[in-house]
Amino acid sequence: MKPEIERVPILRLTEQDRCEIEDTVVTEISLTIILDGQELTTLLCSPTKLEYLAIGFLCSEGLIKSKDEIKKMTVDDQRGVAWLESEQGKEFAAGRLLKRVVTSGGLRRASLHGDADAQSQAKIESGVEISAREVFSLVSEFQNRSPVFKATGGVHSAALCDTKGILVFSEDIGRHNAIDKVFGECVLTDIPTDDRIILSSGRIASEILLKAAKRNIPIIISVAPPTDLAVRLAGDLGVTLVGFVREGRMNVYTHGWRVRMDYTTRQSRARVPG
Amino acid sequence: MKPEIERVPILRLTEQDRCEIEDTVVTEISLTIILDGQELTTLLCSPTKLEYLAIGFLCSEGLIKSKDEIKKMTVDDQRGVAWLESEQGKEFAAGRLLKRVVTSGGLRRASLHGDADAQSQAKIESGVEISAREVFSLVSEFQNRSPVFKATGGVHSAALCDTKGILVFSEDIGRHNAIDKVFGECVLTDIPTDDRIILSSGRIASEILLKAAKRNIPIIISVAPPTDLAVRLAGDLGVTLVGFVREGRMNVYTHGWRVRMDYTTRQSRARVPG
Repeated sequence: MKPEIERVPILRLTEQDRCEIEDTVVTEISLTIILDGQELTTLLCSPTKLEYLAIGFLCSEGLIKSKDEIKKMTVDDQRGVAWLESEQGKEFAAGRLLKRVVTSGGLRRASLHGDADAQSQAKIESGVEISAREVFSLVSEFQNRSPVFKATGGVHSAALCDTKGILVFSEDIGRHNAIDKVFGECVLTDIPTDDRIILSSGRIASEILLKAAKRNIPIIISVAPPTDLAVRLAGDLGVTLVGFVREGRMNVYTHGWRVRMDYTTRQSRARVPG
Repeated sequence: MKPEIERVPILRLTEQDRCEIEDTVVTEISLTIILDGQELTTLLCSPTKLEYLAIGFLCSEGLIKSKDEIKKMTVDDQRGVAWLESEQGKEFAAGRLLKRVVTSGGLRRASLHGDADAQSQAKIESGVEISAREVFSLVSEFQNRSPVFKATGGVHSAALCDTKGILVFSEDIGRHNAIDKVFGECVLTDIPTDDRIILSSGRIASEILLKAAKRNIPIIISVAPPTDLAVRLAGDLGVTLVGFVREGRMNVYTHGWRVRMDYTTRQSRARVPG
């Protein structure tokens, strides 16, 4: 496997100096995903967890729902190819793909999540709640987790959590890939996603919201802001969308009833004289 | 046209307070690009400069080289569709697309830039140079330019510059779209890109490097870091890649001869006693 980071010679320039030093950059590979002999896409991604990425991608695209639908998977790290065979075989994939090509004209990821996808997505009914203090604690754990980010500043990260801590963590140069890797790992290793939380380092646009809603995730938390479309979809789909978590504050865009205040903290602070 | 930002009601939570306030989020639309009757892709993007985005996308994908190849363009903001007709007509587009579908299996953007694209790209020979001080000055102008970023924190920006200042500036929720809008504007309004500089707020992966190299850009500057593949391509293609520009320092990853030191500054500082 190609390493996640690589040392490269660079010039470090300031207004006064010009030094030749070594620096660390994040690595990038291309992964072509072939399902039942049909080339679906080529992702530019970080070189880790490629099985999870391939499965997560197929799930996010709605091509499979569980690992039982995949009979065989072979990933060649060197050539950057993932071959998958579905239980249903060629006709299955061709049928689903044809529909997609007809509706969207291309397999670009963005195009797969049109209004039809959003409208067919069931509303999430989970009654799970989280306290504001738990949100801050999760985000703090999340931000201290990433060794590649610390070394390079060049990756996004995503995690599946419950209210107490991180269960699955992934990094990738693409924020979509990072989330697909998390969901792929959940699918392949039978980790339930119901009533759980997705953390993302990236901005939340409509695609990521739909991706998470497909796995029945009731709460999405990001350190970055969402778009208006993500906010509207979150409202419609019953997802609690928390953004801009930083320095002891956060914005809750939708379904705020799932985020509890920490009343004990509040009361004890209210009792402080002055 | 849909506005670039929108006010939404949110809960602002701290550990002590829970206030209902209004906040600003960046807006998102989908733009379906149809060339000669054939649906190419659907981009999720910010609602501005859609003509530039459509033309820039076609150029970046290598489907057209100049505006003369487009006979007619109609953009419907409301429905989110751009219809384009090429001079060459249906056969032209179908032929080029067929090749792409055969080689990549999908029109996802990433898949179009394989090794073949990189190998067929001519090396950039421009002798243009820039001083370190000019780099800092451009980045400062760039970062103070974005009103939508300031309001929302939710967009990427890109600019075409010469060594003295910004010539074309665009923002978008996608870093690829921001660059496509810049190049689309250059193509449609006859702004030359030779010997000029691209500034980006986003990380530089191989795709963005190839996009810029196609427009013969000799210098790419980002406040964010590059991937190893972008560094290798920049080296091979003769592009000067500058990353991580911040607080009076920068990393020059390739072809550092284009970035001059400001020797007058250096000498005058060297003369300070002590």
